[in-house]
Amino acid sequence: MGQQEKIPAEEALNLVLGKVKPKDADLKIEIKDALGRVCAEKIFAPIDNPPFDRSPLDGYAMQSADTAGASAENPAQLRVAGTVYAGDVFAGKLGKGEAVRIMTGAMFPPDCDCMVMQENASIADGGKIVSVSAPVAAYENYIRAGEDIRKGQLLIEAGERLDFARLTILAAMGMDAVPVKALPVTGLLCTGDELAAAGKPLPTGKIYNSNETLIGSRLRELGFSPKTLPASGDDAGAVAAKIDSVIDELDALITTGAVSVGEKDIFHEVFNILGAEKLFWRLNSKPGGAILTGIYRGRPLMCLSGNPFAALTGFELIVKPVLGKIASRADLAINKRRVKLRENLPAKPVRRFIRARVENGEAAFPAEHLSGQIFSIAGCNSLLDIPAGAALEAGDETEALLF
Amino acid sequence: MGQQEKIPAEEALNLVLGKVKPKDADLKIEIKDALGRVCAEKIFAPIDNPPFDRSPLDGYAMQSADTAGASAENPAQLRVAGTVYAGDVFAGKLGKGEAVRIMTGAMFPPDCDCMVMQENASIADGGKIVSVSAPVAAYENYIRAGEDIRKGQLLIEAGERLDFARLTILAAMGMDAVPVKALPVTGLLCTGDELAAAGKPLPTGKIYNSNETLIGSRLRELGFSPKTLPASGDDAGAVAAKIDSVIDELDALITTGAVSVGEKDIFHEVFNILGAEKLFWRLNSKPGGAILTGIYRGRPLMCLSGNPFAALTGFELIVKPVLGKIASRADLAINKRRVKLRENLPAKPVRRFIRARVENGEAAFPAEHLSGQIFSIAGCNSLLDIPAGAALEAGDETEALLF
Repeated sequence: MGQQEKIPAEEALNLVLGKVKPKDADLKIEIKDALGRVCAEKIFAPIDNPPFDRSPLDGYAMQSADTAGASAENPAQLRVAGTVYAGDVFAGKLGKGEAVRIMTGAMFPPDCDCMVMQENASIADGGKIVSVSAPVAAYENYIRAGEDIRKGQLLIEAGERLDFARLTILAAMGMDAVPVKALPVTGLLCTGDELAAAGKPLPTGKIYNSNETLIGSRLRELGFSPKTLPASGDDAGAVAAKIDSVIDELDALITTGAVSVGEKDIFHEVFNILGAEKLFWRLNSKPGGAILTGIYRGRPLMCLSGNPFAALTGFELIVKPVLGKIASRADLAINKRRVKLRENLPAKPVRRFIRARVENGEAAFPAEHLSGQIFSIAGCNSLLDIPAGAALEAGDETEALLF
Repeated sequence: MGQQEKIPAEEALNLVLGKVKPKDADLKIEIKDALGRVCAEKIFAPIDNPPFDRSPLDGYAMQSADTAGASAENPAQLRVAGTVYAGDVFAGKLGKGEAVRIMTGAMFPPDCDCMVMQENASIADGGKIVSVSAPVAAYENYIRAGEDIRKGQLLIEAGERLDFARLTILAAMGMDAVPVKALPVTGLLCTGDELAAAGKPLPTGKIYNSNETLIGSRLRELGFSPKTLPASGDDAGAVAAKIDSVIDELDALITTGAVSVGEKDIFHEVFNILGAEKLFWRLNSKPGGAILTGIYRGRPLMCLSGNPFAALTGFELIVKPVLGKIASRADLAINKRRVKLRENLPAKPVRRFIRARVENGEAAFPAEHLSGQIFSIAGCNSLLDIPAGAALEAGDETEALLF
């Protein structure tokens, strides 16, 4: 493949995916810090849950045999030999015709095989006698140890993301830490002599740097904590030196700006200075077609357009799934869905990605969607994939890539 | 309404919602820290975007009048008077028959009203002459100031959540800070003599505290940073004293455990000791029916069951929407959807909420879903609302509350 040819996004993505591998450093972190992280190993249950046979209700634990033949006329009367609360252990030994007052969640005394909820029991002699007016079956109202989780069973697969439910499972096992995949360290460098810093008056001819917020916030939404390098001007030597100085601290570097064909599109020169391996330059789609990627000292360099929506498109098509592979995050792979268009889209000669809001299988898109336009990105949740030459009408189907 | 009656979840929620109000403290925070926060005020555009008329491409800016009548045989030839890069200002004044080399994103010189992309221009005399072989219309390849965002226009509504797109809009305006609603401070207190700490061997009769991870992780997933109080035993006086000592630092307190009818269900007594206003006790649904809520020193106390899935159900039905109101988070309101069941559900006399996974409008649910069971919560994303007495079959519709 010639490096200067425009190629389909799918082919471009595969070129980069073929060159990166999952970050293999694993570490053990506390459960309370592990939300959203990727589990690094299969985890098997160290204990049963519940850990012991326990009562589901407040009432009286007993031996079912002692209730045989009980009726309203001839109730079984049992002596209450004690009380067991949740968290306690009943120390005594139960004889025939004896019961124990038991609370929800309390461990069954070993001699009992059932319980009667207090609403179905009659008490006499100041709580010392409990009467039951019907036979109770063995293991009625009886939760057995391991009914929820059996010691040794697989709890979490390696690669699963730790959400509230999976962390709760680990907590119920008494685990205070969990092995997780290391979070990739992502770097973000915005370039352009036209970029001005926020919070100060805008010099004539300059624009504020919105790409740092665009890509930085998107990374944070996906669970990364990007290292944001100070924005840089269009000096290839300075940018190359900057990249050279930080690359060893990073697992991937994302840049914006200076990847087209103009005089100040310095990244071709930056790659030459660094001696970085070029993987592809330019997709056969718009916007975001101007994207240059390569490998430098084993790390992917992903250089996006300076136009905000073009940068976002390149991010979704290439950067997100590449970071997904490095982070072992299956949920960051390209996520396509067939959707119905709500409006017509006239044909254009080039494959396009159009910002859209997909809801209930239908895609609405803003009238204004040029690549430099930011405002209409708000509310969108996907890119519509519009094939070259396709004139689509309301009701036609196409594919959407969900953010 | 009698406080001891079992009431529908909707009625219970309204009782609490009627007693809490949005946290009104607003603060200004840096854009880079504002992801996921709620915008506190309407924000209007302080400047145009783009801030000036600019070029969409690399090429040559000129006056359209100078290209009138141009053709391949008789091209318009213009003298290149200089170059303007993105971020620069063209200092000179353009005469008739003059053009300027212009780069993508650069400000148009005031005398120009169009540009020709470099692929459509011929250069002669070492770049000093540019030839155009067709007339160019006024404002062709011309991006006007304010085309994306017009100074003064409404950018963000008060109450909108700041996602990557909205933060990017603010960054393009040069704003370095944004007024946001204060994040409610949530407290979490798990109670029960049966609770053991993680990371140590489990004493007989005890269980590990999974509710702290369950509710804590769920709060973190929703964007809160809960203050987790040390788990407490079942002593009403001690729990009341603990609540009394922390309530002023909190906007809401969530507890788990001890809200049923047993001897150690201490929260009725805790409310009495505190003199807290009781709002309701018990829903007419299962699980999670045992939930006690009230107001203490203006803050909601929301006391959930100690059974993990019952606690989760109470959290989703009551706590989440209540915190949503306090946090001005519309996205935390109850979110219902009609779904089709994939399996039969036999009738029970009580309204039930069953854990389920909803995908493409269909709800699958685990075979094991007792309220003490944790393992089968993994993978679920909603609660199915099953009316009392309803025998539902595969294909029947019911409502799902999405997590």
